[in-house]
Amino acid sequence: MRTPVTPIQISRVDQGKVSEVDDILVTEEPLEIRLGHGPLDHRKEVPLSVTMRTPGHDAELVLGFLFTEGIITDPAQVVRVEHCENVKKEERGNVVRAELHPSVELDPAKWQRNFYTSSSCGVCGKTSIDAVRTQCAREITPFGPIDAEVITTLPGRMREAQTVFKHTGGNHAAALFDGEGKLLLLREDVGRHNAVDKVIGALLTSGGTNSVTAPGQRTTDNYQLLVSGRAGFELVQKCLMAGIPLMAAVGAPSSLAVQLAKEGGLTLIGFLQRDRFNLYAGGAGAEGQVA
Amino acid sequence: MRTPVTPIQISRVDQGKVSEVDDILVTEEPLEIRLGHGPLDHRKEVPLSVTMRTPGHDAELVLGFLFTEGIITDPAQVVRVEHCENVKKEERGNVVRAELHPSVELDPAKWQRNFYTSSSCGVCGKTSIDAVRTQCAREITPFGPIDAEVITTLPGRMREAQTVFKHTGGNHAAALFDGEGKLLLLREDVGRHNAVDKVIGALLTSGGTNSVTAPGQRTTDNYQLLVSGRAGFELVQKCLMAGIPLMAAVGAPSSLAVQLAKEGGLTLIGFLQRDRFNLYAGGAGAEGQVA
Repeated sequence: MRTPVTPIQISRVDQGKVSEVDDILVTEEPLEIRLGHGPLDHRKEVPLSVTMRTPGHDAELVLGFLFTEGIITDPAQVVRVEHCENVKKEERGNVVRAELHPSVELDPAKWQRNFYTSSSCGVCGKTSIDAVRTQCAREITPFGPIDAEVITTLPGRMREAQTVFKHTGGNHAAALFDGEGKLLLLREDVGRHNAVDKVIGALLTSGGTNSVTAPGQRTTDNYQLLVSGRAGFELVQKCLMAGIPLMAAVGAPSSLAVQLAKEGGLTLIGFLQRDRFNLYAGGAGAEGQVA
Repeated sequence: MRTPVTPIQISRVDQGKVSEVDDILVTEEPLEIRLGHGPLDHRKEVPLSVTMRTPGHDAELVLGFLFTEGIITDPAQVVRVEHCENVKKEERGNVVRAELHPSVELDPAKWQRNFYTSSSCGVCGKTSIDAVRTQCAREITPFGPIDAEVITTLPGRMREAQTVFKHTGGNHAAALFDGEGKLLLLREDVGRHNAVDKVIGALLTSGGTNSVTAPGQRTTDNYQLLVSGRAGFELVQKCLMAGIPLMAAVGAPSSLAVQLAKEGGLTLIGFLQRDRFNLYAGGAGAEGQVA
């Protein structure tokens, strides 16, 4: 059983004084994702990618990843996600296989084209600028007027729920709230993209499924996603893919994040604090729209 | 000419009051890296990858990236790095070609095997866990005793030099110091991996070249690299590849970062502040070694 935290003994140096203390690290381990047809023992499968992640909610991570990367367009296209047992002992728990519906072709060449490199990463199989932004064709229903009183309470609510961060100070979080600021979902991960994919995977697994795939239902219309770090291009892209109309970041957005948010109709907030925030795209330009 | 910052007009909401203000964002744009033989107009080239980066020091970024990914083992294997002119107008400045020495094979299949997915990314062409850690065979000379008085001054020195961060609050920095705490190099980027690759690329371009490729010369022996965020596995890997024996982070390290640092002989410091820090790997276990 892989765990999200790892105990360690460290040396703490405080004003020149050294002491040996017990500490807790956030776990970072590779997760290899394989895609296949038929049950696990059929062995018909192709490797998709390896992501460095914090163990836990692996199935959600895979589902969210496949959806936000455009490899599936409907969660029903994934029959099940299972940890593989037929791997080396030290890799057990770190290799998963998603069984895809037979209607989804196992076409690695096509998937490769869907991938892009994030700025936090710098390494990728993706080889052309053109393909970086091909994913965001989905249209979202714009978020309504921003309730400044509600939105400024979100960072505090997220922090209270960040169990792993409380112990390690070393991971990111993504939290999904409804329009009234009620916390619906929170996921933590050493990678901020993973935290968002886990939230979206959980949303797809739960009642949010139809809302995401059938825009007419509008269930996600007033969803607000808060991320613990900065807002890069790829997080905006994930929100657009999932039909989440508002993303707020505790930190700063990048130029491309703002550009993509404007193009896609996403309301983008940065530097969200208890009494203030910056509005970079969508939502209120006029005072009347910020309630 | 691509610039590291992008002006924007935003709405600032402060205690319910909305105002329209001018702001500055850190620029995030794709950089497509191509590798070739012979001069630019020979057109013999293969695409390598696309990374989302902050424009500026592109040649250093490419050199550092090629070196820390193990595609080259000596900076002399890169004849020159140039921006391509024969691309669409909107991509100009975002496509570079590194001319490799004829002795370096243009073998995309081999390079793909070198790639891994970082936890901050989650997307990659890399498809097997096995290959994630193959790069770190290089041995480094361990860092000597840590001077607590020196190292605790580094965050302040780095902050003073972070020009882009001062204006945007939206990017990472990596700063290289000598053993006495003198700032040698500082690079900023929207991606923390890129910031480190830029520093290493600059080091390779300057007098640091030989020191990196010829361990016997020991010029990098007391180099200390400070990063503005957390310490993930892949940043530790980059330090090991470049022969930098100490890495300090303002934030927390991950479990895999600590494990790899221990295996590779890297001194790893986290939560570095003005009067305290945590020592996770290497360096002093005994009091006597922390000066």
